[in-house]
Amino acid sequence: MGEDCVFCKIVKGELPCYKLYESELALAFLDINPITKGHALVVPKRHVERLSQLSEEEVREVFTAAGKLAEASLEALNAKGVNFWVNQGSIAGQVVSHFHAHVVPRYAEDDLKIEVSAEKLSDSEMRSIAEKIKGKVE
Amino acid sequence: MGEDCVFCKIVKGELPCYKLYESELALAFLDINPITKGHALVVPKRHVERLSQLSEEEVREVFTAAGKLAEASLEALNAKGVNFWVNQGSIAGQVVSHFHAHVVPRYAEDDLKIEVSAEKLSDSEMRSIAEKIKGKVE
Repeated sequence: MGEDCVFCKIVKGELPCYKLYESELALAFLDINPITKGHALVVPKRHVERLSQLSEEEVREVFTAAGKLAEASLEALNAKGVNFWVNQGSIAGQVVSHFHAHVVPRYAEDDLKIEVSAEKLSDSEMRSIAEKIKGKVE
Repeated sequence: MGEDCVFCKIVKGELPCYKLYESELALAFLDINPITKGHALVVPKRHVERLSQLSEEEVREVFTAAGKLAEASLEALNAKGVNFWVNQGSIAGQVVSHFHAHVVPRYAEDDLKIEVSAEKLSDSEMRSIAEKIKGKVE
C-alpha cells in the first residue's frame, strides 16, 4: 500500500512538491496540473483511498487545511471564490488512489465551467431513496 | 443571519426535508434538485458561509457525515463512486449562502460530465504562486 503512490512519495520527501502547508496528519501542495491559478491538493499523510477511511482527526486536519488554503488564495491571489472537491472512485474521476481534496480558486476571468443537469423526482421516489440511504447510514 | 435561509429553516424544522442523518452539529438531507440518484447535502446546523468559518468540531462532523453518506449510497443504491464538492462564493456556484457539502453518488449509466482543462505552468510561476499562498496561510 502506497509503495508506488506518488502522494506517499511526496509525503516521505522522495518526490518534490510545491508545499503550501503541513500539519501533523495532513499535507498541502500545488497540483502540478492546475485547473486554475493556485489549484492545491490536501492529503492525509497516511495512505487511504476513501473519505470514510480517514480518522476523525484526519478529517478535521485535511478540511481545516482546505479552508485555510481557500482563505489564503482569496487574499494572496485575489481569487473571488473557491471550489472544493474530492473524486472518490475511478468512475468519479479519482486518478491517484491516495485520498486528496482539491482546492480550486475561482476568478472572474477563469474559463472553468461546471455544468450539471438536475432532475426532479417525485415525492415517493425521494422518500424511497432517503429510506434506502438511512437504512445504511450508521 | 439565517432568517431567510432555507437551510436554517430546515435545521429548525420550519421547512421539511428528506432527512438522512443528524449529529450534534450537522444535518444531512437529500438535495431536492438531484444531479444523480441519492444526491445529498450536509450542512452545519449553525449558519456560516465559508469552510474557514466552521469550528474544527463542525468540520469533523460535516465531513465525517459526508463519508458515511457516501458509503451508504455505495451500498444502498449500488453507486460505483462519489463526488464530494463545495461551492464557496457565487462565482464558484454557491447559491444558498449557508455552507453545504454536496455528496453526489456516481453510476455507470449517469450522464454527469465534469470536464476541466489544466494548464502547465513553469517552475518559476509555480514557485511564485506557492510563495504567495504560503505567505497567507496561518
